[in-house]
Amino acid sequence: MLVPILAAEALYQTTGTLPVNVKFFFEGQEEIGSPQLAEFVTGHRELLACDMVLAADGSQGGENQPILLTGRRGLCALQIDIQGAERDVHSGTYGGSFLNPIHALVQLLSSLHDEQGKVRVEGFYDAVASVSQEERRMLAEASFDEDAFRTGLGVPRLFGEPSFTPMERIGIRPTLEINGIGGGFQGEGVKTVIPATAHAKITCRLVPDQDPDDIVEKVASQIRKNASEAVTVRVTSLPGGGLPYRVAADHPGNRAAASVLARLYGTPPNVARMGGTIPVCGIFLRHLNASTIHFSFGLSDENIHAPDEFFRLESFRRGQRAYCMMLEEIPRHG
Amino acid sequence: MLVPILAAEALYQTTGTLPVNVKFFFEGQEEIGSPQLAEFVTGHRELLACDMVLAADGSQGGENQPILLTGRRGLCALQIDIQGAERDVHSGTYGGSFLNPIHALVQLLSSLHDEQGKVRVEGFYDAVASVSQEERRMLAEASFDEDAFRTGLGVPRLFGEPSFTPMERIGIRPTLEINGIGGGFQGEGVKTVIPATAHAKITCRLVPDQDPDDIVEKVASQIRKNASEAVTVRVTSLPGGGLPYRVAADHPGNRAAASVLARLYGTPPNVARMGGTIPVCGIFLRHLNASTIHFSFGLSDENIHAPDEFFRLESFRRGQRAYCMMLEEIPRHG
Repeated sequence: MLVPILAAEALYQTTGTLPVNVKFFFEGQEEIGSPQLAEFVTGHRELLACDMVLAADGSQGGENQPILLTGRRGLCALQIDIQGAERDVHSGTYGGSFLNPIHALVQLLSSLHDEQGKVRVEGFYDAVASVSQEERRMLAEASFDEDAFRTGLGVPRLFGEPSFTPMERIGIRPTLEINGIGGGFQGEGVKTVIPATAHAKITCRLVPDQDPDDIVEKVASQIRKNASEAVTVRVTSLPGGGLPYRVAADHPGNRAAASVLARLYGTPPNVARMGGTIPVCGIFLRHLNASTIHFSFGLSDENIHAPDEFFRLESFRRGQRAYCMMLEEIPRHG
Repeated sequence: MLVPILAAEALYQTTGTLPVNVKFFFEGQEEIGSPQLAEFVTGHRELLACDMVLAADGSQGGENQPILLTGRRGLCALQIDIQGAERDVHSGTYGGSFLNPIHALVQLLSSLHDEQGKVRVEGFYDAVASVSQEERRMLAEASFDEDAFRTGLGVPRLFGEPSFTPMERIGIRPTLEINGIGGGFQGEGVKTVIPATAHAKITCRLVPDQDPDDIVEKVASQIRKNASEAVTVRVTSLPGGGLPYRVAADHPGNRAAASVLARLYGTPPNVARMGGTIPVCGIFLRHLNASTIHFSFGLSDENIHAPDEFFRLESFRRGQRAYCMMLEEIPRHG
């Protein structure tokens, strides 16, 4: 956020004017899913009216490789709570007579994906807009070292929908991930208990034009439909959703960004979609009819969200130059 | 344990002798699965030699209903640990590109039972000895209020192998229970993480003639066989197993117990099998060729293992009388 402010200030101090009108919007709720943002934006449409938004949240492809973002995935979240007996009971005294809630839970959860990792929730993919061959070609052009990616994760092999590349699976395909599961005894050794409860947390990453509320309802109703009557199953929608977002590679803002980035890095940007969610993009598009251009200079090795997160001083300086150039470039693209 | 000691002492003080030779064996490892007991018993066969064993660990059917125990289930335990990425990662940045270890875990676990609760591990039931029609008839005669049992557990309905009654499923049928499951975020709210690891703990209750080591191997090899190569799956046998145990209703010790209990309660005992495991029974049978007669006076409402566990003073007095009568009754049954 500091980078664009300093850049605009520097440009104004140097030239005595700015090539475009600039409004700054400070969004402090991104990490908790911006729960009150939509209400604020709809209540202040005139104050916030603009032609496009530049977002400082995001990253480039590498120290020498710029990217042009054409989309971000959305998000929705839910929780499953299963109750069996009203208390934990002894697996010897009672085991075999009633349904263990962990058993009910793993049956329900295992039915949510097929063997190849495709989501098996009825209607889950119905609203997924097809991505043009042109965009898939552009996305494929981005250099991606699959082996380095796999080694970086430390997994034996990559995995997911076979008809999409790993980058496509992250960028243009929705997911359903179980983020947490718990029930019964998790300490060291053995405890012969049948727990009273078991639970799981799920989030879905969504792509245009999936709707967070609709997907929560589809997942929830499939779970309710398949739930055994021998246990009590509760499905709860959790706050923190976000709309999926896309913006054309030839949007005036992206054309301006491409021009600036190519000059700044000496190489044209790769077109990319990112898997993470920034709720503000979907909210500005829906309520202000303004597309968000990602113009941001983080790098993937900067341990985002970790205790040792950092940002390169070089990226700080490059970002300031970039924002000055961008403010001058935008008027040339209408 | 105190009850039989006081009873033998009282009988000896009163009559100057005991009708049978008595050895006391103090087993302090029952709650941790008696890991060193077999080694101790095999190393002291002569010291421990006996015609039968009376066990003070166990319960009667109710304040006015004695039972005659003809079997206890055995136990074996294992743990599944699944590793995906080498660290927790962001579900937006990486979701869709590799296999979430929780997904791999629920797939493996859900394959261990069929829809009706039967264990679906290859060979799991191979060694299960058939129970005679005569014993099933005797077991069925025990009064069992299914509705009270279900209400006591607080479950919407009972559940399990449809060709066996709930009491049979607890007594004469083996189980595979997931005692604990864990992975990822289990706190309040949402965390969009793909966890590095997920794990589950399993115990099986075994019936004659299943062998704990054999069952662990069968479960482990099925899990290994079905494990996805996109994650690392480790299966570990956990200590604390126990052999399943049975003793005939007309074993001399059970005949003596039936006679004493009928006189003491004014009603003949029901024949019962119990689902819990007491490893000492199988160990004494295997290494000393001595059957264990359950002669014990706990009741099911005494909150065994709970902080407010208790034992009725009346059961204490009844038990002392019972042990005196038992020591006099045993010689009459050879």
